[in-house]
Amino acid sequence: MTKEHKEKSTGSKSPDRREFLKRGAALAGGLSLGTVESAIGQTPPSGGNILGTPELVGYGKRSRFETSVRIPHGGRPSPDAFGLDFHIAAPLQESVGVITPSSLHYMGTTRGSFVPDIDPEEHRLMIHGMVDRPLIFTMEELRRLPSVTRLHFIECAGNRANRRHKTVQETHGMTSCAEWTGVLLSTLLKEAGVQDDGSWIVAEGVEEVKGASSIPMAKAMEDCLVCYGMNGEAVRPQQGYPLRLLVPGFEGILSVKWLRRIKVVDQFYMTYNDYGHLRQESDDAALAMQIGPKSVITFPSGEQKLPGPGFYEISGLAWSGGGAVSKVEVSTDSGRSWVEAEIRGTAHPMAHTRFSLQWDWNGQECELQSRCTDELGSVQPSRAQIAEFWNQPPDQPVRVRGQDNSIQPWRVESDGSVHNAIS
Amino acid sequence: MTKEHKEKSTGSKSPDRREFLKRGAALAGGLSLGTVESAIGQTPPSGGNILGTPELVGYGKRSRFETSVRIPHGGRPSPDAFGLDFHIAAPLQESVGVITPSSLHYMGTTRGSFVPDIDPEEHRLMIHGMVDRPLIFTMEELRRLPSVTRLHFIECAGNRANRRHKTVQETHGMTSCAEWTGVLLSTLLKEAGVQDDGSWIVAEGVEEVKGASSIPMAKAMEDCLVCYGMNGEAVRPQQGYPLRLLVPGFEGILSVKWLRRIKVVDQFYMTYNDYGHLRQESDDAALAMQIGPKSVITFPSGEQKLPGPGFYEISGLAWSGGGAVSKVEVSTDSGRSWVEAEIRGTAHPMAHTRFSLQWDWNGQECELQSRCTDELGSVQPSRAQIAEFWNQPPDQPVRVRGQDNSIQPWRVESDGSVHNAIS
Repeated sequence: MTKEHKEKSTGSKSPDRREFLKRGAALAGGLSLGTVESAIGQTPPSGGNILGTPELVGYGKRSRFETSVRIPHGGRPSPDAFGLDFHIAAPLQESVGVITPSSLHYMGTTRGSFVPDIDPEEHRLMIHGMVDRPLIFTMEELRRLPSVTRLHFIECAGNRANRRHKTVQETHGMTSCAEWTGVLLSTLLKEAGVQDDGSWIVAEGVEEVKGASSIPMAKAMEDCLVCYGMNGEAVRPQQGYPLRLLVPGFEGILSVKWLRRIKVVDQFYMTYNDYGHLRQESDDAALAMQIGPKSVITFPSGEQKLPGPGFYEISGLAWSGGGAVSKVEVSTDSGRSWVEAEIRGTAHPMAHTRFSLQWDWNGQECELQSRCTDELGSVQPSRAQIAEFWNQPPDQPVRVRGQDNSIQPWRVESDGSVHNAIS
Repeated sequence: MTKEHKEKSTGSKSPDRREFLKRGAALAGGLSLGTVESAIGQTPPSGGNILGTPELVGYGKRSRFETSVRIPHGGRPSPDAFGLDFHIAAPLQESVGVITPSSLHYMGTTRGSFVPDIDPEEHRLMIHGMVDRPLIFTMEELRRLPSVTRLHFIECAGNRANRRHKTVQETHGMTSCAEWTGVLLSTLLKEAGVQDDGSWIVAEGVEEVKGASSIPMAKAMEDCLVCYGMNGEAVRPQQGYPLRLLVPGFEGILSVKWLRRIKVVDQFYMTYNDYGHLRQESDDAALAMQIGPKSVITFPSGEQKLPGPGFYEISGLAWSGGGAVSKVEVSTDSGRSWVEAEIRGTAHPMAHTRFSLQWDWNGQECELQSRCTDELGSVQPSRAQIAEFWNQPPDQPVRVRGQDNSIQPWRVESDGSVHNAIS
């Protein structure tokens, strides 16, 4: 028996109870939310129909009442045969916890809707270039090697392409987080034997235009993964089945899908995927690849509506390419004052981290913001700081090149409606 | 740049490299596995066809080459209209990491294939009985309350019903692990105000026979969750949509699905779900509910086949109702000697924990075993210990009442085939 229960069962008034009621009173009149009815005399709700069908024995599916879906991101046109847009954003407004379901994980390619239909028996990974022992691995061989399992986000550098977007799915949906399983890239590179001048790798996927990314050797040897597993099963086709390179904390385009080739080279290559770094020196490019400390409130967020004043849990996601999230602060007064939010669960390095804050909304118009600090001490910038950095007037929408990790403000109107506060 | 990379790029021989090759040599002649070909002159494999279709923009799916499915457990007949068996076991032999995909999470009911089709708008949770303030919550109200997100396994006490089963899916597939999100049950009970004599709860789900479970108040107040989220989305219908009670570390039948009612009472009730504890005193029943320290090797496991001698990673899952897994040992010689395995990632309390051991198989017949120790110091028992406990001859298959958490041995034949060593 817990201490708490012992106190209860001996008939004494529990200090925990008093503490809770005190706290409850601070939470908009306890947790009653103003709408909880008395249960006396009420019949429990009745059940529904039988859903079981033979095919659902093998592989289950979600409820027909759950209709959360990904949406095309930023209206980006896509040069594919289906007229589909395969920059598709995850429904963060309905997210819970930190795992993104594999079916709802954001997906991006810059070149249409090509998703290869790869037979894993036929797939090979080649490691060559400036190595002592060029190697080709089958999937079965990769699965025999020492593996690691890590929680990591992947985020497209183009997330937040338009800062006036209305919902959090539109503004921030090009990031997701999964439990990834695979082999450390360093294990493979060490086995191949990187030669002394091998300072970069070029990683290539099975794409029609030979999508490839240049990645500095320091990063390749540090924590990159060659993944065959995602959220407990095989990597999904839209995420690179059967093999995806994961470059933790770096912009998503480097996490090459349908990975088939890694070439060790002695310089930054200008591949198709490197277009974002065309104007950069190669030494700067490596640094520019890293996602800055970032956070966003997912509830309440743009186009949601609060039913009325009372207690709510403000909830959101924070992440950083610099390591683990160390602190998230929330402001309910447009950034004038900040309160430290609770981190829900463990803050893993380069992983989405759930934060929350208990909030008593008094029904007045207000503006909600969140601010992430990572373990390096880097702090998510304000809009004004970002505007100054890009030398733009602070009172106008900021246009940035590359990543925008500035604070996202949500305005809560007195009628409970929530809107993007960037107008 | 990492220290390692600096050493490499300045042209000195890296100590890490030497260390790796030394270790590699210990791993069956390095990681070459005996079958890796030279890549020189070899064309990278070609891609496949376009998989993108409009419906996959919204909600993705797995590759057609991935056919892993759940199977009926133990041939258990089920009294339902469809003739379906809804004790269905997860394919642990293909698991990676610790998350079980929601579509593959084991599912069990003792009374047919009834899966209610519940509209969350209509669903209510009632808390009543020996409380000061009986309450009814809507789903929306529950979502407004302070939430937690935790990784927890659920395991059916009937897992390992037949110790001669052939595959790990058959022997151990009635356990799964997910990231659960919801409200602490203690939050709700404290708000309702448990009266001094309230020492048990009875939790009831929306099932045709009113499935209900008796749970001691100490456990209810300690760490039980009322969950609406699972692996980043809503709880799946087969797992209790829209609401499941999670009783961490206790046998799965207590984690009531389709939760609609919690009644605070002053004694152990004999409900339909309590049948497993019919012959027990109520004081003993609480203890008997807890899952013991357990582990099983998922690769290589029964009916798999090793292609030949060489390096392999032995991989498996360990868990305990007593808290976090603190140690897993692996034996490759029928339990005569033990080596401590590596824990992959973080060992969370009452959660599946992935372990692995690098193994050089010499091609000789051998027997693999794994043994879990939890943070309380409880150690997974051997077959002989279990036999002694149940007062049965050690050289015959042991029949136990209730949970069987004894060590699972897999025999590897010299031809690479793997079989259940319990004959």
